[in-house]
Amino acid sequence: MYTHKTKIRVRYGETDQMKFAYYGIYAQYFEVGRVELLRSLGLSYKTLENQGFALPVVNLNINYKKPAFYDDELTIETTIKVIPTIKVVFYYNTFNEKGDLLNTAETTLVFVDSNTGKPCNAPKILIEKFIEI
Amino acid sequence: MYTHKTKIRVRYGETDQMKFAYYGIYAQYFEVGRVELLRSLGLSYKTLENQGFALPVVNLNINYKKPAFYDDELTIETTIKVIPTIKVVFYYNTFNEKGDLLNTAETTLVFVDSNTGKPCNAPKILIEKFIEI
Amino acid sequence: MYTHKTKIRVRYGETDQMKFAYYGIYAQYFEVGRVELLRSLGLSYKTLENQGFALPVVNLNINYKKPAFYDDELTIETTIKVIPTIKVVFYYNTFNEKGDLLNTAETTLVFVDSNTGKPCNAPKILIEKFIEI
Amino acid sequence: MYTHKTKIRVRYGETDQMKFAYYGIYAQYFEVGRVELLRSLGLSYKTLENQGFALPVVNLNINYKKPAFYDDELTIETTIKVIPTIKVVFYYNTFNEKGDLLNTAETTLVFVDSNTGKPCNAPKILIEKFIEI
Repeated sequence: MYTHKTKIRVRYGETDQMKFAYYGIYAQYFEVGRVELLRSLGLSYKTLENQGFALPVVNLNINYKKPAFYDDELTIETTIKVIPTIKVVFYYNTFNEKGDLLNTAETTLVFVDSNTGKPCNAPKILIEKFIEI
Repeated sequence: MYTHKTKIRVRYGETDQMKFAYYGIYAQYFEVGRVELLRSLGLSYKTLENQGFALPVVNLNINYKKPAFYDDELTIETTIKVIPTIKVVFYYNTFNEKGDLLNTAETTLVFVDSNTGKPCNAPKILIEKFIEI
Repeated sequence: MYTHKTKIRVRYGETDQMKFAYYGIYAQYFEVGRVELLRSLGLSYKTLENQGFALPVVNLNINYKKPAFYDDELTIETTIKVIPTIKVVFYYNTFNEKGDLLNTAETTLVFVDSNTGKPCNAPKILIEKFIEI
Repeated sequence: MYTHKTKIRVRYGETDQMKFAYYGIYAQYFEVGRVELLRSLGLSYKTLENQGFALPVVNLNINYKKPAFYDDELTIETTIKVIPTIKVVFYYNTFNEKGDLLNTAETTLVFVDSNTGKPCNAPKILIEKFIEI
């Protein structure tokens, strides 16, 4: 299990007229969460793509408990529990500055070979990093 | 059970560098789907809000099967299966022009009294509409 | 001079906590406006891209007069005044349902050869269409 | 004259299929730029709103020179040149990590009394801060 925390501040343009951070914006926040988790391991999502891997999301599931508001500095806590195979599952907890748990979520991504468009195994370097931990 | 279909064309700004409609944009598409379902019943989400109801999303779950691409005209098929109580569940199927099923999803929303901020029953008029059908 | 009108309904996720359609969303609305102008001439932006043209925006200028609100059905009136050369300027007027002029804007785009990455002349078919009119 | 620099990393969801950060996303980046400029002076945009001020944008003008790409860490350099009156103009330069100037922009915002909806003078505290500098 490996957890990484990233901070994201809610932008004005991300709020809606309910004054909440729009429920759809979390897809972007979680994207940042998993990219920064990889970066914390010395892995760059950008590099993975350049090496011919794509990582489309096949499932997104979010349970919203409390809203975030404009200018809130959120903590996205991103976790990998199992070593990636042809897929990888990321778990997320979003907290506000007071420590309230705003939502929990998970995304499942699959590894795809950009050249063939077919599913493939996770890049070796990524698997090795996770075995190390 | 009540189903309504809405068409949405993928905007350039909604694509990402994988050339896919970004996985997070569907939250907006489904929002349009359920709003148009209500409109097809003579109900306006805007009016509901003005009458003191808020409808925050408490769960979003999307299963992605195939991507949508720039300029694709998508059909969002939105369904309500059960008469709303203090919550309402919408189910979605997204199709492209070829009729491919791109994803399936569901969202659970709860009715909240805007003045008290507390959960409440669905507006009478909404329940009656669904009983009618 | 050629003018085309497109209708766009403001989505909930496009509002901000001022209850306005977020000032940045018009970049997308104008993108839709110019794409639909081209489509009304039998030209597809998607096809232009597939033929090796890119059309990056080099200037965006918007004068906001009045806000749009959730669920407003806006009319984007898009105009080309001069035959495209290596660049093309689109002018926009945004109206709400009451006919209020919400904003005026213009965007300048340049034609780029996707293979070389260098500026190039507008596609012949596009120039011919505009000469026709 | 007062200048403040903010760093923003381009998210995947902010790219488009040209592989560029979408031209419309800069409206959000500049929003972050001016909010952080205010914060660097001990002023919170959120607090201004809570005190009954709204700051709608009346003009946005962007000159795009070079694109930003996914995962680029951009520097938004935001400048105020003149003491705010009933309006305030912010100037922006966006740089990538190599120091390339990607675009220049300006936004004009007006102060509005949220209760009356009418234009008003900039909050005293804001004017005083700028006189101080």
